[in-house]
Amino acid sequence: MTTLVEVARAAGVTAATVSNVLRNRGKVGEETRRRVLAAVESMGYRPNLMARALVEGKPHTMALVVSSIANPFYPEFALEVERAARKLGYFLLVCNTNDDPAQERAYLDAVGGALAQGVIVMNADFVQLDALQDLRRRGVPVVLCMWERPQEPPPLPCVAVDLYQAGVLAAEHLLRLGHKRLGAVCGSEPTGNHQWRLRGFIDTVQKAGVELPASHLRYGHDTIDDGRNAAHSLLAGVPGLTAVFATNDLPALGVLQAAAELGLEVPRDLSVIGVTDIQLAHQMRPALSTVAMPTAEAAMLAVQMLQSEITAKPDHPLPISITEPPRLVVRASTGKPRG
Amino acid sequence: MTTLVEVARAAGVTAATVSNVLRNRGKVGEETRRRVLAAVESMGYRPNLMARALVEGKPHTMALVVSSIANPFYPEFALEVERAARKLGYFLLVCNTNDDPAQERAYLDAVGGALAQGVIVMNADFVQLDALQDLRRRGVPVVLCMWERPQEPPPLPCVAVDLYQAGVLAAEHLLRLGHKRLGAVCGSEPTGNHQWRLRGFIDTVQKAGVELPASHLRYGHDTIDDGRNAAHSLLAGVPGLTAVFATNDLPALGVLQAAAELGLEVPRDLSVIGVTDIQLAHQMRPALSTVAMPTAEAAMLAVQMLQSEITAKPDHPLPISITEPPRLVVRASTGKPRG
Repeated sequence: MTTLVEVARAAGVTAATVSNVLRNRGKVGEETRRRVLAAVESMGYRPNLMARALVEGKPHTMALVVSSIANPFYPEFALEVERAARKLGYFLLVCNTNDDPAQERAYLDAVGGALAQGVIVMNADFVQLDALQDLRRRGVPVVLCMWERPQEPPPLPCVAVDLYQAGVLAAEHLLRLGHKRLGAVCGSEPTGNHQWRLRGFIDTVQKAGVELPASHLRYGHDTIDDGRNAAHSLLAGVPGLTAVFATNDLPALGVLQAAAELGLEVPRDLSVIGVTDIQLAHQMRPALSTVAMPTAEAAMLAVQMLQSEITAKPDHPLPISITEPPRLVVRASTGKPRG
Repeated sequence: MTTLVEVARAAGVTAATVSNVLRNRGKVGEETRRRVLAAVESMGYRPNLMARALVEGKPHTMALVVSSIANPFYPEFALEVERAARKLGYFLLVCNTNDDPAQERAYLDAVGGALAQGVIVMNADFVQLDALQDLRRRGVPVVLCMWERPQEPPPLPCVAVDLYQAGVLAAEHLLRLGHKRLGAVCGSEPTGNHQWRLRGFIDTVQKAGVELPASHLRYGHDTIDDGRNAAHSLLAGVPGLTAVFATNDLPALGVLQAAAELGLEVPRDLSVIGVTDIQLAHQMRPALSTVAMPTAEAAMLAVQMLQSEITAKPDHPLPISITEPPRLVVRASTGKPRG
């Protein structure tokens, strides 16, 4: 890749002068300016985004508001959003609300008002639809990403993933393997964010004639620790379970740890399956079977939608993009039940 | 939404002049300046950050530039920086350069020039000291965080952690347990970021009269996968190793996985110790012994230093803050060697 220094050498100027020309700063004679730009072009030097922004008179920035940057899904998603944004010539600023509604409002006001042309907000337990609608009414483009129930869209532009289907796929996989004593660990409260995944799982299991009473379900936060605690409670309370579905990979990893602590071999004694396919899912041993979210696709759709919103006329109809359905990824943590 | 061009038309100036006024750049007469700001206000032009900064005095935003948001340390650190920044009344914008020098420069130009009052940059393999010095010369406050060698400070304001000491502590721990057949997995190249941790380890081991030839060392990236590969190579190439030091927790987790794949029980057959104490270190089973970095303290010092830099006079001496030393955290992955 051509560097600034190489361009400078070819144009017979200093790197600072090339930088000044690209930034439209400092005093550079017209002849020198032309020579620098010719070198930039002929050598294929990729001008940075700020240079482009200055030329076009716009800052070209999108913001991504996430609720919990310490949850590994969010940085992985942020990386995909950044890649997609960069392709369209936007910087990405990541704002973490730390599950704090006041902090979310403060960020929305700041980024929406001044720091970015528009905002992508991750659907999460604490997301405030009313605050987002307010923001949109004030003319700030907003896209809600990872809405989990395309059939019941929110009152906002959104990118939706059918995560009911994730529960269906997980259940079908376990049923196909022959499991009949099933449990589930939900990474949100019963009416929270993960309810659709859990409902897809429960509906599918019950349609197959397999019982799944409330005593086989546990609820908690979307963390490894809560998954581990839930699994200990579940495995102590419901003897003979052969498989556990967790509504996200982090609690699923917690279930794997509980199994190890109890001396259960996975998948011989217990099958475990999650949802999302974060990096850790394939990095852990045993590698985690899971239902993969179309993370990169959702990121790209969100960025494209936000770009459309930025340039759209007021009062256009609410857009919704639905990703490809999630898909089953079978790894080492699921197998046939013993005996 | 009012555009810059509309404001320019109303004020009877060019768009470039409006931009110059909002950015406080170029030569604009006071009368013109007032006319432009009046047009901005009366037309409800949504000021970008710079405009708001001019009107309100300051936007109160700090940027954190990280090299790899998918590495779990960075989001955990970002969370601490955000907490610290919020205490002082600043928003935090997180910019991920994805280990791309061009992307780093582009972010630095953008955030430093317009989006934030100052920038905290994480010391990493790809950090460009010259670009940071350039930025500082142009008047943008910069703090380099997590510099690993306080004795040899960089030509920039910095927060340093003595990570040579991390290697010393890990070595002392393993030696105290009685290990004499040691290996090390470095999460950077030999001259890279992790060299000080590794040197601390090597120096301490050799001072104790234990051999640690080059054949007992492996180098790679700071990832679980590279740690696993390095451990397989090390355990195959050096029979009888009883303990492995990894210069970071991610490769240490990879060593744990390699051990599991080879049927080695940790710590009975192999002790493993890392550096940093990311969340995963205590969440994994066996929980990882490690040398904890003072992450929260470093974040607070960086934010405080950046605030001082923002208000400091030009040409003040380069500040350096040194954190408390890292400290040993013993968990389940280290124990006495067998036999």
